[in-house]
Amino acid sequence: MRTVEWSAAGVRLIDQRRLPQDLVVTVCRTVDEVAAAIRTMQVRGAPAIGACAAFGLTLAAQQSPATSPPDLLADLERGERLLAATRPTAVNLTWALGRVMQAVTAACECGVAAMRAAALAEAQAIAEADVFANRRIGAAGAPLIADGDTVLTHCNAGGLACVDYGTALGVIRAAHADGTDLHVLVDETRPFLQGARLTAWELGQLGIPHTLITDSMAGHFMQRGNVQKVVVGADRIAANGDAANKIGTYTLAVVAQRHGVPFYVAAPTSTVDLSVAYGNDIPIEERSAAEVARFAGVQIAPEATPAAHPAFDVTPHELITAIITEAGVLRPPFGPSLAAAVTAGAGVLAERERPVSVDALATAGRASV
Amino acid sequence: MRTVEWSAAGVRLIDQRRLPQDLVVTVCRTVDEVAAAIRTMQVRGAPAIGACAAFGLTLAAQQSPATSPPDLLADLERGERLLAATRPTAVNLTWALGRVMQAVTAACECGVAAMRAAALAEAQAIAEADVFANRRIGAAGAPLIADGDTVLTHCNAGGLACVDYGTALGVIRAAHADGTDLHVLVDETRPFLQGARLTAWELGQLGIPHTLITDSMAGHFMQRGNVQKVVVGADRIAANGDAANKIGTYTLAVVAQRHGVPFYVAAPTSTVDLSVAYGNDIPIEERSAAEVARFAGVQIAPEATPAAHPAFDVTPHELITAIITEAGVLRPPFGPSLAAAVTAGAGVLAERERPVSVDALATAGRASV
Repeated sequence: MRTVEWSAAGVRLIDQRRLPQDLVVTVCRTVDEVAAAIRTMQVRGAPAIGACAAFGLTLAAQQSPATSPPDLLADLERGERLLAATRPTAVNLTWALGRVMQAVTAACECGVAAMRAAALAEAQAIAEADVFANRRIGAAGAPLIADGDTVLTHCNAGGLACVDYGTALGVIRAAHADGTDLHVLVDETRPFLQGARLTAWELGQLGIPHTLITDSMAGHFMQRGNVQKVVVGADRIAANGDAANKIGTYTLAVVAQRHGVPFYVAAPTSTVDLSVAYGNDIPIEERSAAEVARFAGVQIAPEATPAAHPAFDVTPHELITAIITEAGVLRPPFGPSLAAAVTAGAGVLAERERPVSVDALATAGRASV
Repeated sequence: MRTVEWSAAGVRLIDQRRLPQDLVVTVCRTVDEVAAAIRTMQVRGAPAIGACAAFGLTLAAQQSPATSPPDLLADLERGERLLAATRPTAVNLTWALGRVMQAVTAACECGVAAMRAAALAEAQAIAEADVFANRRIGAAGAPLIADGDTVLTHCNAGGLACVDYGTALGVIRAAHADGTDLHVLVDETRPFLQGARLTAWELGQLGIPHTLITDSMAGHFMQRGNVQKVVVGADRIAANGDAANKIGTYTLAVVAQRHGVPFYVAAPTSTVDLSVAYGNDIPIEERSAAEVARFAGVQIAPEATPAAHPAFDVTPHELITAIITEAGVLRPPFGPSLAAAVTAGAGVLAERERPVSVDALATAGRASV
């Protein structure tokens, strides 16, 4: 089952707020519903929200009453703005929206039916490319994990954070599939508990041995020599290798450095933002204080307690041992290696990306609409 | 209101599992009830469980049917073993029990009534000395906080962790009372949420400005330059200055060092264990995995998920800027300064400690029993 996928009824996605208690698939039937699903974290994880937004824009294209290319483009630009405003940190969101807009724009000369078909084809290509990239990330990263390793991960960078398979968890599952004897230490990842709810669930489904800990315990286990590797995902990687990821990642990297524990970031090149020079320039989403002060429907702090909720932090490149992408394992200095990987990543994925030519889309558009 | 105190009905204590929703005072009427209250964390915090255990042993003394000093001592030794086994890390527990046993033993020659009176007098002295020590810790530490500081604290080292006033929070409230303009960043402190539930509640009661964060956010705020000081309590301090405290403290100290943020440990000298040379020799309590996997009656991880729950970690002395005690602010090297402080601390407290002589106890014993 995919985390997010296209269906005749709309965008089907696993409601990640309901896991692990209930595995519920919900269908978003309008672009507004898709935007709400991303905003409320029914769907989360940088690659997953990228694909989800692409499908959301496809819904906007299909449901627009426009009969001329300029009118359809105007409707899509509204949809793009709506979706882009849902969450600011993960660059995959704007990257995917940009790709769909580019494909639709390229199909303008063939008419609105072709534009609608182009949107869907591009969104599907983004989703397929994500799965393909994740499997390549897994294959590239698996050899970094050794027999007997305990691997610490934070948040959920598994199949649920992507269309399928996973980035950081992709590396772990690929190593496990290769027969590597490993154990995973799962940070619960407050406040949203993606680790306790989602990563523990995925690892349980996959039969990979794991132990849940609170975020505050990771340093203790590193101090005791019980962690051999840290592997996390990313929401945006700056041109110099600084990586924004779920709040708490930076702290792990600092403690890992103190104990000489290799710290790996696993992400597709769609997470790399070469337009941002340094991590400090990555916008950090500030979410609702209520998500910190309440838990599981229960107010945990006194009612009037003010709370802060930065949802991400930035790990500076000097604390990162390597970045694992679909174009291979990148080592410092990350500046040149990331620039090359973005180009190579596009090449790696090219065969998966554009199964349908614009001419074919025009034909498809005329046939189906 | 005191966190724990003696009453005619038994040991009165604030049930800390019920805060902040309900302020409930419960009375433990037997030594077994006191042991259960410590084990289940109805009462927690190193100084508070020390005083509580001393009162528990007093209950055992009062309720023992023994009519001879050796029989009473045997009953008390059973009570001491029961109470000492409740929680292994905080040394205040065994320290307080040892003091009561010593006082009772010294009163043996005066008979069982005097022994019972000695137990109560010693337990009362321990409780009074704790409040006195905390106020001195506050006075000693307050000048370390500067106008405009944001002070990060972890867990609850407030009045609720002690008989009254607090250690780390004692420093903060003393600085606030002195007119220092400060803000407190409160780690929620998973899994038991002492920060969100207890520290936020105390700061709210005291009118001290504060913001609640998850434990994973502390590093981010230090990275952004938003933390000027870290002040935490301790459960046991080894002879070399290594300090055991609530899980997550070690990680804070590592990140504080990276950012040049002073890291202070505030504790009475009753928390210093000169018999333990290094922090690695401090026993770390392993609590129930269910306390990690469940919260507020809700299972947060999949049912079968294994979890680990070390309740404390050890911060090595080289990460500690100063240890704030009732005998003053200790600077490295902590070996000699701690040894001197333990002696000085006893001297500081002497005036509060033994308001009643053994002769007076013997008289009191004859009068009341």
